[in-house]
Amino acid sequence: MIETTIELRVRYAETDQMAVVYHGNYFPWFELARVHLLDDLGLPYRVLEARGFMLPVLCCQAEFKQPARFDDRLQIIARIQEPPKVRFSVHYEVSRAATLLAIGQTSHAFMTAQGRASKPPADFLEKMHAHF
Amino acid sequence: MIETTIELRVRYAETDQMAVVYHGNYFPWFELARVHLLDDLGLPYRVLEARGFMLPVLCCQAEFKQPARFDDRLQIIARIQEPPKVRFSVHYEVSRAATLLAIGQTSHAFMTAQGRASKPPADFLEKMHAHF
Amino acid sequence: MIETTIELRVRYAETDQMAVVYHGNYFPWFELARVHLLDDLGLPYRVLEARGFMLPVLCCQAEFKQPARFDDRLQIIARIQEPPKVRFSVHYEVSRAATLLAIGQTSHAFMTAQGRASKPPADFLEKMHAHF
Amino acid sequence: MIETTIELRVRYAETDQMAVVYHGNYFPWFELARVHLLDDLGLPYRVLEARGFMLPVLCCQAEFKQPARFDDRLQIIARIQEPPKVRFSVHYEVSRAATLLAIGQTSHAFMTAQGRASKPPADFLEKMHAHF
Repeated sequence: MIETTIELRVRYAETDQMAVVYHGNYFPWFELARVHLLDDLGLPYRVLEARGFMLPVLCCQAEFKQPARFDDRLQIIARIQEPPKVRFSVHYEVSRAATLLAIGQTSHAFMTAQGRASKPPADFLEKMHAHF
Repeated sequence: MIETTIELRVRYAETDQMAVVYHGNYFPWFELARVHLLDDLGLPYRVLEARGFMLPVLCCQAEFKQPARFDDRLQIIARIQEPPKVRFSVHYEVSRAATLLAIGQTSHAFMTAQGRASKPPADFLEKMHAHF
Repeated sequence: MIETTIELRVRYAETDQMAVVYHGNYFPWFELARVHLLDDLGLPYRVLEARGFMLPVLCCQAEFKQPARFDDRLQIIARIQEPPKVRFSVHYEVSRAATLLAIGQTSHAFMTAQGRASKPPADFLEKMHAHF
Repeated sequence: MIETTIELRVRYAETDQMAVVYHGNYFPWFELARVHLLDDLGLPYRVLEARGFMLPVLCCQAEFKQPARFDDRLQIIARIQEPPKVRFSVHYEVSRAATLLAIGQTSHAFMTAQGRASKPPADFLEKMHAHF
Protein backbone atom coordinates (compact mmCIF):
# COMPACT_ATOMS: atom_id res chain seq x y z
CA MET A 1 0.00 0.00 0.00
CA ILE A 2 1.17 3.53 -0.61
CA GLU A 3 -0.49 6.48 1.07
CA THR A 4 0.03 10.24 1.24
CA THR A 5 -1.71 12.92 3.30
CA ILE A 6 -1.89 16.57 2.38
CA GLU A 7 -3.42 19.53 4.16
CA LEU A 8 -5.34 22.31 2.51
CA ARG A 9 -7.49 25.26 3.42
CA VAL A 10 -10.84 25.70 1.73
CA ARG A 11 -11.04 28.66 -0.65
CA TYR A 12 -14.08 30.94 -0.83
CA ALA A 13 -14.10 30.24 -4.58
CA GLU A 14 -14.77 26.58 -3.77
CA THR A 15 -18.03 27.25 -1.90
CA ASP A 16 -21.47 27.60 -3.45
CA GLN A 17 -24.61 29.34 -2.26
CA MET A 18 -25.48 26.38 -0.01
CA ALA A 19 -22.47 27.71 2.01
CA VAL A 20 -20.61 24.43 1.53
CA VAL A 21 -17.99 23.28 -0.93
CA TYR A 22 -19.48 22.49 -4.35
CA HIS A 23 -19.25 18.73 -4.95
CA GLY A 24 -17.26 19.06 -8.19
CA ASN A 25 -14.55 20.98 -6.34
CA TYR A 26 -13.42 17.90 -4.41
CA PHE A 27 -11.84 16.44 -7.56
CA PRO A 28 -9.04 19.04 -7.76
CA TRP A 29 -8.29 18.17 -4.11
CA PHE A 30 -8.08 14.49 -4.98
CA GLU A 31 -5.76 15.43 -7.84
CA LEU A 32 -3.50 17.43 -5.51
CA ALA A 33 -3.23 14.49 -3.09
CA ARG A 34 -2.54 12.12 -6.03
CA VAL A 35 0.23 14.40 -7.29
CA HIS A 36 1.84 14.34 -3.84
CA LEU A 37 1.52 10.55 -3.76
CA LEU A 38 3.45 10.34 -7.05
CA ASP A 39 6.07 12.67 -5.55
CA ASP A 40 6.40 10.33 -2.59
CA LEU A 41 6.75 7.43 -5.01
CA GLY A 42 9.69 9.23 -6.59
CA LEU A 43 7.97 9.79 -9.94
CA PRO A 44 6.41 13.26 -9.97
CA TYR A 45 3.53 13.55 -12.42
CA ARG A 46 5.27 16.54 -14.03
CA VAL A 47 8.21 14.25 -14.82
CA LEU A 48 5.94 11.50 -16.18
CA GLU A 49 4.34 13.99 -18.58
CA ALA A 50 7.76 15.30 -19.61
CA ARG A 51 8.68 11.71 -20.51
CA GLY A 52 5.56 11.44 -22.69
CA PHE A 53 3.20 9.63 -20.34
CA MET A 54 -0.17 10.96 -19.27
CA LEU A 55 -2.53 9.59 -16.65
CA PRO A 56 -6.07 10.55 -17.65
CA VAL A 57 -8.95 9.88 -15.27
CA LEU A 58 -11.08 6.98 -16.56
CA CYS A 59 -13.70 7.31 -13.87
CA CYS A 60 -14.15 9.24 -10.67
CA GLN A 61 -16.57 9.24 -7.79
CA ALA A 62 -17.15 10.83 -4.42
CA GLU A 63 -19.50 10.30 -1.52
CA PHE A 64 -20.25 13.18 0.82
CA LYS A 65 -20.91 12.53 4.50
CA GLN A 66 -20.54 15.98 6.04
CA PRO A 67 -20.08 19.29 4.25
CA ALA A 68 -16.70 21.00 3.98
CA ARG A 69 -16.92 24.75 4.55
CA PHE A 70 -15.00 27.91 3.76
CA ASP A 71 -11.70 28.20 5.60
CA ASP A 72 -11.79 24.63 6.89
CA ARG A 73 -8.36 23.07 7.30
CA LEU A 74 -8.72 19.66 5.71
CA GLN A 75 -6.62 16.54 5.47
CA ILE A 76 -6.80 14.67 2.17
CA ILE A 77 -5.47 11.12 2.11
CA ALA A 78 -4.67 9.45 -1.24
CA ARG A 79 -4.05 5.71 -1.10
CA ILE A 80 -3.25 3.02 -3.65
CA GLN A 81 -4.42 -0.22 -2.09
CA GLU A 82 -3.61 -2.76 -4.75
CA PRO A 83 -0.55 -3.23 -6.95
CA PRO A 84 -1.21 -1.32 -10.18
CA LYS A 85 -1.66 -3.27 -13.41
CA VAL A 86 -2.60 -1.56 -16.66
CA ARG A 87 -5.36 0.18 -14.74
CA PHE A 88 -5.15 1.25 -11.15
CA SER A 89 -7.34 3.03 -8.64
CA VAL A 90 -6.62 5.69 -6.07
CA HIS A 91 -8.81 6.04 -2.98
CA TYR A 92 -9.31 9.29 -1.09
CA GLU A 93 -10.51 10.42 2.31
CA VAL A 94 -11.29 14.03 3.19
CA SER A 95 -11.31 14.83 6.91
CA ARG A 96 -11.52 17.85 9.18
CA ALA A 97 -9.61 16.75 12.27
CA ALA A 98 -11.36 13.55 13.46
CA THR A 99 -14.43 14.02 11.23
CA LEU A 100 -14.52 12.14 7.95
CA LEU A 101 -16.24 14.41 5.42
CA ALA A 102 -16.01 12.51 2.16
CA ILE A 103 -14.49 9.51 0.43
CA GLY A 104 -13.69 9.13 -3.23
CA GLN A 105 -11.98 7.12 -5.91
CA THR A 106 -10.39 7.72 -9.30
CA SER A 107 -9.22 5.15 -11.86
CA HIS A 108 -6.39 5.68 -14.29
CA ALA A 109 -4.45 4.11 -17.12
CA PHE A 110 -1.37 5.42 -18.87
CA MET A 111 -1.67 7.07 -22.25
CA THR A 112 1.02 8.40 -24.59
CA ALA A 113 1.14 12.07 -25.54
CA GLN A 114 -0.42 10.97 -28.85
CA GLY A 115 -3.45 9.71 -26.98
CA ARG A 116 -2.79 5.98 -27.26
CA ALA A 117 -3.28 3.54 -24.40
CA SER A 118 0.11 2.55 -22.98
CA LYS A 119 1.53 0.12 -20.48
CA PRO A 120 2.83 1.84 -17.34
CA PRO A 121 6.52 2.83 -17.52
CA ALA A 122 8.71 0.06 -16.07
CA ASP A 123 10.11 2.23 -13.26
CA PHE A 124 6.59 3.21 -12.24
CA LEU A 125 5.67 -0.46 -11.79
CA GLU A 126 8.93 -1.22 -9.99
CA LYS A 127 8.58 1.66 -7.57
CA MET A 128 4.94 0.82 -6.97
CA HIS A 129 5.54 -2.87 -6.41
CA ALA A 130 8.10 -2.04 -3.74
CA HIS A 131 5.12 -0.86 -1.65
CA PHE A 132 3.15 -4.12 -1.85
CA MET B 1 -39.08 8.09 -16.43
CA ILE B 2 -38.35 11.74 -16.91
CA GLU B 3 -35.60 12.93 -19.20
CA THR B 4 -34.23 16.25 -20.41
CA THR B 5 -31.54 17.08 -22.98
CA ILE B 6 -29.52 20.27 -23.05
CA GLU B 7 -26.87 21.51 -25.45
CA LEU B 8 -23.72 23.30 -24.48
CA ARG B 9 -20.47 24.45 -25.98
CA VAL B 10 -17.22 23.61 -24.23
CA ARG B 11 -15.42 26.62 -22.72
CA TYR B 12 -11.66 27.07 -22.93
CA ALA B 13 -11.71 27.47 -19.14
CA GLU B 14 -12.99 23.89 -18.89
CA THR B 15 -9.97 22.35 -20.64
CA ASP B 16 -6.69 21.36 -19.00
CA GLN B 17 -3.19 20.94 -20.38
CA MET B 18 -4.05 17.46 -21.68
CA ALA B 19 -6.15 19.50 -24.20
CA VAL B 20 -9.33 17.82 -23.00
CA VAL B 21 -12.02 18.82 -20.52
CA TYR B 22 -10.86 18.34 -16.91
CA HIS B 23 -12.85 15.51 -15.34
CA GLY B 24 -14.20 17.61 -12.46
CA ASN B 25 -15.74 20.04 -14.94
CA TYR B 26 -18.37 17.53 -16.06
CA PHE B 27 -20.23 17.95 -12.75
CA PRO B 28 -21.37 21.52 -13.45
CA TRP B 29 -22.71 20.19 -16.79
CA PHE B 30 -24.63 17.47 -14.99
CA GLU B 31 -25.97 20.16 -12.64
CA LEU B 32 -27.12 22.29 -15.57
CA ALA B 33 -28.98 19.35 -17.13
CA ARG B 34 -30.53 18.49 -13.72
CA VAL B 35 -31.72 22.09 -13.32
CA HIS B 36 -33.40 21.90 -16.73
CA LEU B 37 -34.99 18.58 -15.78
CA LEU B 38 -36.54 20.23 -12.71
CA ASP B 39 -37.78 23.06 -14.95
CA ASP B 40 -39.42 20.48 -17.19
CA LEU B 41 -40.99 18.89 -14.13
CA GLY B 42 -42.54 22.26 -13.29
CA LEU B 43 -40.54 22.77 -10.09
CA PRO B 44 -37.49 24.89 -10.89
CA TYR B 45 -34.65 24.38 -8.41
CA ARG B 46 -34.59 28.14 -7.78
CA VAL B 47 -38.21 27.88 -6.62
CA LEU B 48 -37.50 24.87 -4.42
CA GLU B 49 -34.71 26.79 -2.66
CA ALA B 50 -36.96 29.83 -2.27
CA ARG B 51 -39.45 27.52 -0.52
CA GLY B 52 -36.72 26.37 1.87
CA PHE B 53 -35.73 23.08 0.27
CA MET B 54 -32.24 22.23 -0.88
CA LEU B 55 -31.03 19.25 -2.85
CA PRO B 56 -27.42 18.56 -1.90
CA VAL B 57 -25.42 15.97 -3.79
CA LEU B 58 -24.88 12.86 -1.63
CA CYS B 59 -22.65 11.13 -4.11
CA CYS B 60 -21.53 11.65 -7.68
CA GLN B 61 -19.64 9.68 -10.27
CA ALA B 62 -18.59 9.83 -13.89
CA GLU B 63 -17.02 7.46 -16.37
CA PHE B 64 -15.12 8.86 -19.34
CA LYS B 65 -15.12 7.01 -22.65
CA GLN B 66 -13.88 9.65 -25.06
CA PRO B 67 -12.53 13.10 -24.27
CA ALA B 68 -14.59 16.25 -24.72
CA ARG B 69 -12.61 19.08 -26.25
CA PHE B 70 -12.68 22.87 -26.47
CA ASP B 71 -15.52 24.24 -28.55
CA ASP B 72 -17.29 20.88 -28.83
CA ARG B 73 -21.06 21.16 -29.06
CA LEU B 74 -22.31 18.58 -26.59
CA GLN B 75 -25.64 17.09 -25.68
CA ILE B 76 -26.17 16.33 -21.99
CA ILE B 77 -29.07 14.05 -21.08
CA ALA B 78 -30.34 13.97 -17.48
CA ARG B 79 -32.72 11.14 -16.65
CA ILE B 80 -34.55 9.97 -13.54
CA GLN B 81 -35.25 6.31 -14.11
CA GLU B 82 -37.01 5.30 -10.92
CA PRO B 83 -39.74 6.99 -8.89
CA PRO B 84 -37.98 9.11 -6.24
CA LYS B 85 -38.32 8.14 -2.60
CA VAL B 86 -36.44 9.96 0.14
CA ARG B 87 -33.33 9.53 -1.97
CA PHE B 88 -33.22 9.57 -5.72
CA SER B 89 -30.63 9.29 -8.46
CA VAL B 90 -30.14 11.17 -11.70
CA HIS B 91 -28.29 9.56 -14.61
CA TYR B 92 -26.41 11.49 -17.26
CA GLU B 93 -25.04 10.95 -20.73
CA VAL B 94 -22.67 13.32 -22.48
CA SER B 95 -22.52 13.00 -26.27
CA ARG B 96 -21.01 14.79 -29.23
CA ALA B 97 -23.44 13.98 -32.05
CA ALA B 98 -23.57 10.15 -32.21
CA THR B 99 -20.51 9.63 -29.98
CA LEU B 100 -21.12 8.90 -26.32
CA LEU B 101 -18.32 10.62 -24.37
CA ALA B 102 -19.24 10.02 -20.76
CA ILE B 103 -21.89 8.74 -18.41
CA GLY B 104 -22.53 9.79 -14.84
CA GLN B 105 -24.80 9.69 -11.85
CA THR B 106 -25.64 11.87 -8.86
CA SER B 107 -27.73 10.99 -5.80
CA HIS B 108 -29.76 13.47 -3.80
CA ALA B 109 -32.00 13.88 -0.80
CA PHE B 110 -33.92 16.95 0.31
CA MET B 111 -32.63 19.07 3.15
CA THR B 112 -34.13 22.11 4.84
CA ALA B 113 -32.39 25.48 4.76
CA GLN B 114 -31.32 24.69 8.36
CA GLY B 115 -29.44 21.64 7.10
CA ARG B 116 -31.84 18.95 8.31
CA ALA B 117 -32.82 15.93 6.25
CA SER B 118 -36.33 16.38 4.92
CA LYS B 119 -38.94 14.40 3.05
CA PRO B 120 -39.45 15.63 -0.50
CA PRO B 121 -42.15 18.30 -0.85
CA ALA B 122 -45.53 16.71 -1.68
CA ASP B 123 -45.87 18.44 -5.04
CA PHE B 124 -42.39 17.24 -6.04
CA LEU B 125 -43.44 13.63 -5.43
CA GLU B 126 -46.77 14.13 -7.19
CA LYS B 127 -45.22 15.68 -10.26
CA MET B 128 -42.49 13.04 -10.34
CA HIS B 129 -44.89 10.13 -9.96
CA ALA B 130 -46.91 11.35 -12.93
CA HIS B 131 -43.89 10.31 -15.04
CA PHE B 132 -43.75 6.70 -13.84
CA MET C 1 -16.65 48.17 -34.30
CA ILE C 2 -17.57 44.54 -34.01
CA GLU C 3 -19.95 43.30 -31.35
CA THR C 4 -21.54 40.01 -30.36
CA THR C 5 -24.13 39.18 -27.71
CA ILE C 6 -24.57 35.79 -26.11
CA GLU C 7 -27.05 34.54 -23.55
CA LEU C 8 -26.26 32.25 -20.69
CA ARG C 9 -27.83 30.88 -17.56
CA VAL C 10 -25.92 31.06 -14.29
CA ARG C 11 -24.78 27.69 -12.95
CA TYR C 12 -24.97 26.78 -9.26
CA ALA C 13 -21.27 25.93 -9.50
CA GLU C 14 -20.59 29.59 -10.33
CA THR C 15 -22.05 30.94 -7.08
CA ASP C 16 -20.24 31.28 -3.77
CA GLN C 17 -21.49 31.41 -0.20
CA MET C 18 -22.35 35.10 -0.57
CA ALA C 19 -25.14 33.69 -2.79
CA VAL C 20 -23.80 35.60 -5.79
CA VAL C 21 -21.52 34.66 -8.67
CA TYR C 22 -17.86 34.53 -7.59
CA HIS C 23 -15.98 37.37 -9.27
CA GLY C 24 -13.42 35.11 -10.98
CA ASN C 25 -16.23 33.23 -12.71
CA TYR C 26 -17.07 36.18 -14.97
CA PHE C 27 -13.88 35.59 -16.98
CA PRO C 28 -15.06 32.30 -18.53
CA TRP C 29 -18.22 34.20 -19.58
CA PHE C 30 -16.12 36.91 -21.21
CA GLU C 31 -14.17 34.13 -22.95
CA LEU C 32 -17.37 32.55 -24.25
CA ALA C 33 -18.57 35.88 -25.66
CA ARG C 34 -15.13 36.50 -27.22
CA VAL C 35 -15.21 33.07 -28.87
CA HIS C 36 -18.60 33.90 -30.38
CA LEU C 37 -17.26 37.25 -31.58
CA LEU C 38 -14.45 35.44 -33.43
CA ASP C 39 -17.07 33.10 -34.93
CA ASP C 40 -19.00 36.13 -36.17
CA LEU C 41 -15.79 37.51 -37.63
CA GLY C 42 -15.42 34.30 -39.63
CA LEU C 43 -12.27 33.12 -37.82
CA PRO C 44 -13.27 30.75 -35.01
CA TYR C 45 -10.69 30.58 -32.24
CA ARG C 46 -10.55 26.79 -32.68
CA VAL C 47 -9.44 27.36 -36.29
CA LEU C 48 -6.85 29.96 -35.27
CA GLU C 49 -5.30 27.49 -32.81
CA ALA C 50 -5.35 24.74 -35.44
CA ARG C 51 -3.38 27.10 -37.68
CA GLY C 52 -0.79 27.58 -34.92
CA PHE C 53 -1.95 30.90 -33.47
CA MET C 54 -2.91 31.42 -29.85
CA LEU C 55 -4.44 34.44 -28.21
CA PRO C 56 -3.35 34.54 -24.58
CA VAL C 57 -4.84 37.08 -22.21
CA LEU C 58 -2.29 39.79 -21.36
CA CYS C 59 -4.49 41.51 -18.84
CA CYS C 60 -8.06 41.31 -17.67
CA GLN C 61 -10.35 43.32 -15.46
CA ALA C 62 -13.94 43.50 -14.32
CA GLU C 63 -16.06 45.95 -12.37
CA PHE C 64 -19.14 44.69 -10.54
CA LYS C 65 -22.18 46.94 -10.20
CA GLN C 66 -24.89 44.48 -9.19
CA PRO C 67 -24.52 40.81 -8.33
CA ALA C 68 -25.41 38.05 -10.75
CA ARG C 69 -27.25 35.18 -9.08
CA PHE C 70 -27.96 31.49 -9.60
CA ASP C 71 -30.26 30.77 -12.53
CA ASP C 72 -30.14 34.34 -13.85
CA ARG C 73 -30.47 34.58 -17.61
CA LEU C 74 -27.73 36.97 -18.62
CA GLN C 75 -26.68 38.75 -21.77
CA ILE C 76 -22.95 39.10 -22.33
CA ILE C 77 -21.81 41.59 -24.96
CA ALA C 78 -18.26 41.39 -26.34
CA ARG C 79 -17.12 44.38 -28.38
CA ILE C 80 -13.92 45.38 -30.15
CA GLN C 81 -14.01 49.14 -30.35
CA GLU C 82 -10.76 49.97 -32.09
CA PRO C 83 -9.04 48.40 -35.08
CA PRO C 84 -6.64 45.76 -33.70
CA LYS C 85 -2.92 46.29 -34.05
CA VAL C 86 -0.39 43.90 -32.52
CA ARG C 87 -2.37 44.19 -29.30
CA PHE C 88 -6.08 44.61 -29.07
CA SER C 89 -8.72 44.90 -26.38
CA VAL C 90 -12.17 43.40 -26.01
CA HIS C 91 -14.79 45.11 -23.86
CA TYR C 92 -17.63 43.28 -22.13
CA GLU C 93 -20.99 44.09 -20.59
CA VAL C 94 -22.97 41.66 -18.46
CA SER C 95 -26.69 42.45 -18.14
CA ARG C 96 -29.82 40.86 -16.76
CA ALA C 97 -32.56 42.33 -18.96
CA ALA C 98 -32.24 46.13 -18.60
CA THR C 99 -29.89 45.96 -15.60
CA LEU C 100 -26.18 46.30 -16.24
CA LEU C 101 -24.42 44.02 -13.75
CA ALA C 102 -20.77 44.26 -14.72
CA ILE C 103 -18.32 45.57 -17.28
CA GLY C 104 -14.94 44.15 -18.16
CA GLN C 105 -12.00 44.17 -20.50
CA THR C 106 -9.35 41.77 -21.74
CA SER C 107 -6.24 42.52 -23.81
CA HIS C 108 -4.62 40.08 -26.19
CA ALA C 109 -1.74 39.59 -28.58
CA PHE C 110 -1.07 36.69 -30.91
CA MET C 111 1.48 34.06 -29.99
CA THR C 112 2.75 31.06 -31.92
CA ALA C 113 2.27 27.53 -30.61
CA GLN C 114 5.96 27.73 -29.59
CA GLY C 115 5.13 30.64 -27.30
CA ARG C 116 6.64 33.44 -29.38
CA ALA C 117 4.96 36.81 -29.89
CA SER C 118 3.50 36.97 -33.38
CA LYS C 119 1.87 39.49 -35.66
CA PRO C 120 -1.84 38.80 -36.18
CA PRO C 121 -2.59 36.55 -39.19
CA ALA C 122 -3.24 38.67 -42.30
CA ASP C 123 -6.82 37.44 -42.75
CA PHE C 124 -7.58 38.30 -39.12
CA LEU C 125 -6.54 41.91 -39.72
CA GLU C 126 -8.42 42.06 -43.01
CA LYS C 127 -11.64 40.73 -41.57
CA MET C 128 -11.31 42.97 -38.53
CA HIS C 129 -10.61 46.10 -40.55
CA ALA C 130 -13.75 45.53 -42.58
CA HIS C 131 -15.66 46.43 -39.39
CA PHE C 132 -13.99 49.81 -38.84
CA MET D 1 1.44 49.03 4.83
CA ILE D 2 0.43 45.49 5.57
CA GLU D 3 1.69 42.59 3.52
CA THR D 4 1.39 38.81 3.56
CA THR D 5 3.05 36.15 1.42
CA ILE D 6 1.67 32.68 0.82
CA GLU D 7 3.03 29.75 -1.12
CA LEU D 8 0.99 27.47 -3.32
CA ARG D 9 1.46 24.74 -5.86
CA VAL D 10 -0.34 24.95 -9.18
CA ARG D 11 -3.07 22.35 -9.65
CA TYR D 12 -3.61 20.52 -12.94
CA ALA D 13 -7.23 21.69 -12.75
CA GLU D 14 -5.98 25.28 -12.98
CA THR D 15 -4.27 24.80 -16.36
CA ASP D 16 -5.92 25.09 -19.76
CA GLN D 17 -5.03 23.64 -23.14
CA MET D 18 -2.44 26.36 -23.72
CA ALA D 19 -0.56 24.41 -20.97
CA VAL D 20 -0.56 27.47 -18.71
CA VAL D 21 -2.80 28.59 -15.85
CA TYR D 22 -6.13 29.97 -17.12
CA HIS D 23 -6.23 33.72 -16.41
CA GLY D 24 -9.44 33.55 -14.35
CA ASN D 25 -7.80 31.08 -11.98
CA TYR D 26 -5.47 33.71 -10.53
CA PHE D 27 -8.37 35.34 -8.67
CA PRO D 28 -8.86 32.44 -6.21
CA TRP D 29 -5.10 32.75 -5.48
CA PHE D 30 -5.49 36.46 -4.79
CA GLU D 31 -8.41 35.58 -2.50
CA LEU D 32 -6.31 33.04 -0.60
CA ALA D 33 -3.53 35.59 -0.05
CA ARG D 34 -6.12 38.21 1.04
CA VAL D 35 -7.60 35.75 3.54
CA HIS D 36 -4.15 35.18 5.01
CA LEU D 37 -3.59 38.94 5.18
CA LEU D 38 -6.77 39.32 7.24
CA ASP D 39 -5.54 36.49 9.49
CA ASP D 40 -2.29 38.39 10.00
CA LEU D 41 -4.30 41.50 10.80
CA GLY D 42 -6.05 39.55 13.55
CA LEU D 43 -9.48 39.63 11.89
CA PRO D 44 -9.98 36.42 9.92
CA TYR D 45 -12.50 36.81 7.11
CA ARG D 46 -14.46 33.86 8.52
CA VAL D 47 -14.89 35.83 11.75
CA LEU D 48 -15.92 39.01 9.91
CA GLU D 49 -18.65 37.05 8.08
CA ALA D 50 -19.78 35.45 11.35
CA ARG D 51 -20.19 38.97 12.74
CA GLY D 52 -22.38 39.92 9.77
CA PHE D 53 -19.85 41.71 7.56
CA MET D 54 -19.03 40.71 4.01
CA LEU D 55 -16.30 42.03 1.75
CA PRO D 56 -17.49 41.67 -1.84
CA VAL D 57 -15.13 42.40 -4.70
CA LEU D 58 -16.06 45.68 -6.42
CA CYS D 59 -13.48 45.36 -9.13
CA CYS D 60 -10.57 43.12 -9.94
CA GLN D 61 -7.76 43.07 -12.44
CA ALA D 62 -4.65 41.14 -13.34
CA GLU D 63 -1.73 41.61 -15.72
CA PHE D 64 0.19 38.57 -16.90
CA LYS D 65 3.92 38.85 -17.61
CA GLN D 66 4.99 35.21 -17.73
CA PRO D 67 2.80 32.12 -17.62
CA ALA D 68 2.39 30.03 -14.48
CA ARG D 69 2.47 26.31 -15.19
CA PHE D 70 1.31 23.05 -13.65
CA ASP D 71 3.16 22.11 -10.47
CA ASP D 72 4.91 25.47 -10.16
CA ARG D 73 5.58 26.51 -6.58
CA LEU D 74 4.43 30.11 -6.46
CA GLN D 75 4.62 32.94 -3.98
CA ILE D 76 1.59 35.22 -3.81
CA ILE D 77 2.01 38.55 -2.05
CA ALA D 78 -1.06 40.50 -0.92
CA ARG D 79 -0.44 44.08 0.16
CA ILE D 80 -2.60 46.95 1.37
CA GLN D 81 -0.65 50.08 0.57
CA GLU D 82 -2.95 52.83 1.79
CA PRO D 83 -5.00 53.16 4.95
CA PRO D 84 -8.47 51.79 4.17
CA LYS D 85 -11.43 54.17 4.10
CA VAL D 86 -14.89 53.01 3.07
CA ARG D 87 -13.26 51.42 0.05
CA PHE D 88 -9.84 49.87 -0.02
CA SER D 89 -7.62 48.09 -2.50
CA VAL D 90 -5.40 45.07 -2.21
CA HIS D 91 -2.42 44.61 -4.53
CA TYR D 92 -0.97 41.25 -5.50
CA GLU D 93 2.22 39.85 -6.97
CA VAL D 94 2.60 36.30 -8.22
CA SER D 95 6.19 35.04 -8.47
CA ARG D 96 8.04 31.81 -9.14
CA ALA D 97 11.28 32.27 -7.22
CA ALA D 98 12.84 35.48 -8.60
CA THR D 99 10.51 35.70 -11.61
CA LEU D 100 7.50 37.98 -11.35
CA LEU D 101 4.67 36.28 -13.26
CA ALA D 102 1.69 38.52 -12.66
CA ILE D 103 0.40 41.49 -10.72
CA GLY D 104 -3.17 42.24 -9.74
CA GLN D 105 -5.54 44.32 -7.71
CA THR D 106 -8.95 43.96 -6.08
CA SER D 107 -11.13 46.66 -4.51
CA HIS D 108 -13.54 46.06 -1.68
CA ALA D 109 -16.12 47.72 0.55
CA PHE D 110 -17.94 46.26 3.51
CA MET D 111 -21.52 45.10 3.14
CA THR D 112 -23.96 43.73 5.70
CA ALA D 113 -25.36 40.22 5.40
CA GLN D 114 -28.54 41.93 4.13
CA GLY D 115 -26.57 43.34 1.20
CA ARG D 116 -26.36 46.96 2.34
CA ALA D 117 -23.22 49.05 2.06
CA SER D 118 -21.62 49.40 5.47
CA LYS D 119 -18.80 51.31 7.11
CA PRO D 120 -15.89 49.05 8.07
CA PRO D 121 -16.11 47.62 11.61
CA ALA D 122 -14.28 49.87 14.08
CA ASP D 123 -11.75 47.21 15.08
CA PHE D 124 -10.93 46.57 11.42
CA LEU D 125 -10.03 50.25 10.96
CA GLU D 126 -8.08 50.33 14.22
CA LYS D 127 -6.05 47.26 13.43
CA MET D 128 -5.44 48.47 9.89
CA HIS D 129 -4.37 51.95 10.93
CA ALA D 130 -1.79 50.48 13.28
CA HIS D 131 0.06 49.44 10.10
CA PHE D 132 0.26 52.92 8.55
